[in-house]
Amino acid sequence: MARMVGFSSLYRLYPQQPTWSSVVKRVLDAPSVRGRGRGVHSGARNTPARLPFSHIIEEDVAFFTRLLAGRAVTDPDVLAACNTDWLKSVQGKSELLLRPQTTEEVSQILRYCNERNLAVSPQGGNTGLVGGSVPVFDEIILSTALMNKVLTFNTVSGILTCQAGCVLESLSQYLEELDFIMPLDLGAKGSCHIGGNVATNAGGLRLLRYGSLRGTVLGLEVVLADGRVLNCLSDLRKDNTGYDLKQLFIGSEGTLGVITAVSILCPRKPKSVNVAFLGCLTFQNLLETFQCSRGMLGEILSAFEFLDAACMKLLERHLQLTNPITESPFYIVIETAGSNATHDEEKLHKFLEEVMTSSLVTDGTVATEETKIKALWSLRERITEALTHDGFTYKYDISLPVEKIYQLVNDMRDHLGNKAKNVVGYGHVGDGNLHLNITSPSKDPSLLAAIEPYVYEWTSSVQGSISADHTGPPWHPQPIQDLA
Amino acid sequence: MARMVGFSSLYRLYPQQPTWSSVVKRVLDAPSVRGRGRGVHSGARNTPARLPFSHIIEEDVAFFTRLLAGRAVTDPDVLAACNTDWLKSVQGKSELLLRPQTTEEVSQILRYCNERNLAVSPQGGNTGLVGGSVPVFDEIILSTALMNKVLTFNTVSGILTCQAGCVLESLSQYLEELDFIMPLDLGAKGSCHIGGNVATNAGGLRLLRYGSLRGTVLGLEVVLADGRVLNCLSDLRKDNTGYDLKQLFIGSEGTLGVITAVSILCPRKPKSVNVAFLGCLTFQNLLETFQCSRGMLGEILSAFEFLDAACMKLLERHLQLTNPITESPFYIVIETAGSNATHDEEKLHKFLEEVMTSSLVTDGTVATEETKIKALWSLRERITEALTHDGFTYKYDISLPVEKIYQLVNDMRDHLGNKAKNVVGYGHVGDGNLHLNITSPSKDPSLLAAIEPYVYEWTSSVQGSISADHTGPPWHPQPIQDLA
Repeated sequence: MARMVGFSSLYRLYPQQPTWSSVVKRVLDAPSVRGRGRGVHSGARNTPARLPFSHIIEEDVAFFTRLLAGRAVTDPDVLAACNTDWLKSVQGKSELLLRPQTTEEVSQILRYCNERNLAVSPQGGNTGLVGGSVPVFDEIILSTALMNKVLTFNTVSGILTCQAGCVLESLSQYLEELDFIMPLDLGAKGSCHIGGNVATNAGGLRLLRYGSLRGTVLGLEVVLADGRVLNCLSDLRKDNTGYDLKQLFIGSEGTLGVITAVSILCPRKPKSVNVAFLGCLTFQNLLETFQCSRGMLGEILSAFEFLDAACMKLLERHLQLTNPITESPFYIVIETAGSNATHDEEKLHKFLEEVMTSSLVTDGTVATEETKIKALWSLRERITEALTHDGFTYKYDISLPVEKIYQLVNDMRDHLGNKAKNVVGYGHVGDGNLHLNITSPSKDPSLLAAIEPYVYEWTSSVQGSISADHTGPPWHPQPIQDLA
Repeated sequence: MARMVGFSSLYRLYPQQPTWSSVVKRVLDAPSVRGRGRGVHSGARNTPARLPFSHIIEEDVAFFTRLLAGRAVTDPDVLAACNTDWLKSVQGKSELLLRPQTTEEVSQILRYCNERNLAVSPQGGNTGLVGGSVPVFDEIILSTALMNKVLTFNTVSGILTCQAGCVLESLSQYLEELDFIMPLDLGAKGSCHIGGNVATNAGGLRLLRYGSLRGTVLGLEVVLADGRVLNCLSDLRKDNTGYDLKQLFIGSEGTLGVITAVSILCPRKPKSVNVAFLGCLTFQNLLETFQCSRGMLGEILSAFEFLDAACMKLLERHLQLTNPITESPFYIVIETAGSNATHDEEKLHKFLEEVMTSSLVTDGTVATEETKIKALWSLRERITEALTHDGFTYKYDISLPVEKIYQLVNDMRDHLGNKAKNVVGYGHVGDGNLHLNITSPSKDPSLLAAIEPYVYEWTSSVQGSISADHTGPPWHPQPIQDLA
């Protein structure tokens, strides 16, 4: 199962920095903190130093054992899994995993750690791709895995309030029975936690239709570094009282506090879903197809994703997936979601007729049945997984003006020549979001030197962002790959 | 023309508080500031004291005259209009109006005021209903009226970047020619500025469909109190770099800085718009009609607004508007917006058939033609205007769990008995947002004493918010009416 974005927390919760403003200040000012990035691309140059946190002693373990009876874990086998990220690219050395069930327990944990100057690394589903979900050194891992209760759901307003450790797919299943869906969806849904989704401001596959978490998250409960609980939960769609402090925690990766509960606005379950998988000869044709889909599919367009031929080759080679259409330089996954199957199919049919007769699209297939829909989606969702089989992967997650999305892939290919094994591009056309991946038989410093800073300079030259889906604060300019 | 929500800035920009974090701290901590609310409901009890800001002297005027050549205004007639809010309920005593055209000018104004310890009151379209758009004392008025340029519009991404003083309706007209619309719409559109909309986090009539400004505003440029320019403008749909500082300014009413430019994501112009005006016998029927509309109209439902019979009487009496359907206890305005007129009309037809045959709705009329659509909308949009003709109005803007929206109006009527002239309720059902208005032949302290704290206690007892559309920070618990 492919996993794309998850709970990320590279930028740790700093004990003894009790207010968020001082945390912000410290993170932004301290030169020692700027080097916290694993610097794995660049070798020793950026290796971070362990900050002067206390080391865990017996009394600490005893305290947590009393507090969490059976949920303070020191078993090396269990810890090994929590110390390693999904890509197996980074590894921490934590000796203690805490699994609180309640906000009060999280509060007590953080209060104690703050007093003892112990570093903490929050962890959700550990599905992140940028190394943020595991400790850098020996931080205590604070897992949200047992905070997995739905607290309330209002079937009139569609507002769900749940604990931070609820798995995205479990929430989706819970809601579907009530005729609602989650406003976000992503490949990692089977493991990622909603708290991690919010902490990383995950975008995912439904952003085009339902917007970002900044609009759909209506409230948060957060425990600050000193154990104070900030309750910004809300079951109101509109609340303009005071500053919207919860926004600070969305996408802040656990640096300002641990998210313990989330209120989120959920859309009605669409009655009709269709997925089309299409092929295009040029990226310009693909962009024109996107424009055409926005006009003709309008309010039922719920996703417009793309992959290039290089991605398809990896899916075929490493996962034995079958290309359902004629080989093409570019492929599109279009999803429609609406309230009337007849209307939706008519719109989709007219759109397909238009893009086929105008030769924007050269071949295509449509699925309306759930198994086939899943099969088509897997061609987009499992690219990350296919890449892990292709060797060492340098991953970049970039926002660009939509018309320039693919130019970077082409320029990178020209720039790298035969230095790279594969240079592939895929992503969310609707959001201007490119996933650029460069593979190599093994870790290759000379390849890296050819990629960076080229990729950053290129992105900067078109006013893009190097952090679209996969959160990364500005004081950590490098995507993170591997410590080993 | 009715105006509903505009640029509000009661909570002034504090000079000599150069960083936003210290401004936050001061506002939250200082007891003197808590009393800044005009306290107009409660008479002298809460009258704020002028803080120890400098008074304007000749050299100040000379400085601004040099800086703004012809745009530093001391003419008492011009100032009179800027010192008075649209409801004519509050009045300031500013002697200087500054009309910058550029961010650099705003920066120079604030830097100077900060050094001179002069208070500043930012002003947009001056359309606010809660007294926030005019000075409390003699603050310098910083108007965004001449900052009205569109900076960029990307027809592929739909991202508009413009100066803060652009009038909402002008932006709508600009976009409609390019086949796009603004993601928000409100009665004050003819006068209100986009900067004020963002500063007050205006909700308005399209929130149900396009979400809040927290999702659609992609970037802001803000000048801080000491003149520093914070550039968070963005023409990217996704950017997860660092903390999302711009969110702090959305809904912060000019307390943290002056918004000078806005990047906002604009939806495609719908090809088909329909408006239905319906009557219901009970509020329960109205709520069931809402539920039914969400299921049957789904993705084309763009507004679901309501007014009660008391509102209709005011529209008829004071504005000579005609009720297009049979007299009913409750009225609904439903708008659909979609990409295919045939499909939309079919959906709407089926929905109407369903709610009429099940007697949820007792009468109704539908408009598809623009003039008729506007006429139906005016029944909802002009209620504020009708109320101004009914006497002194106590206005409350409340978020409630949707099923409790109208109970407050009924309870308030019972509670007030014949003390009030009229108690009316209208608002955004889709957002759980009630506009509760109570009129009286003139200002009436005993009526006020009967309304407050009753209305707040009632709202609090159902975990509602007293500040939905019309922003008000928590340290200012009273809606604001009148200083006179």
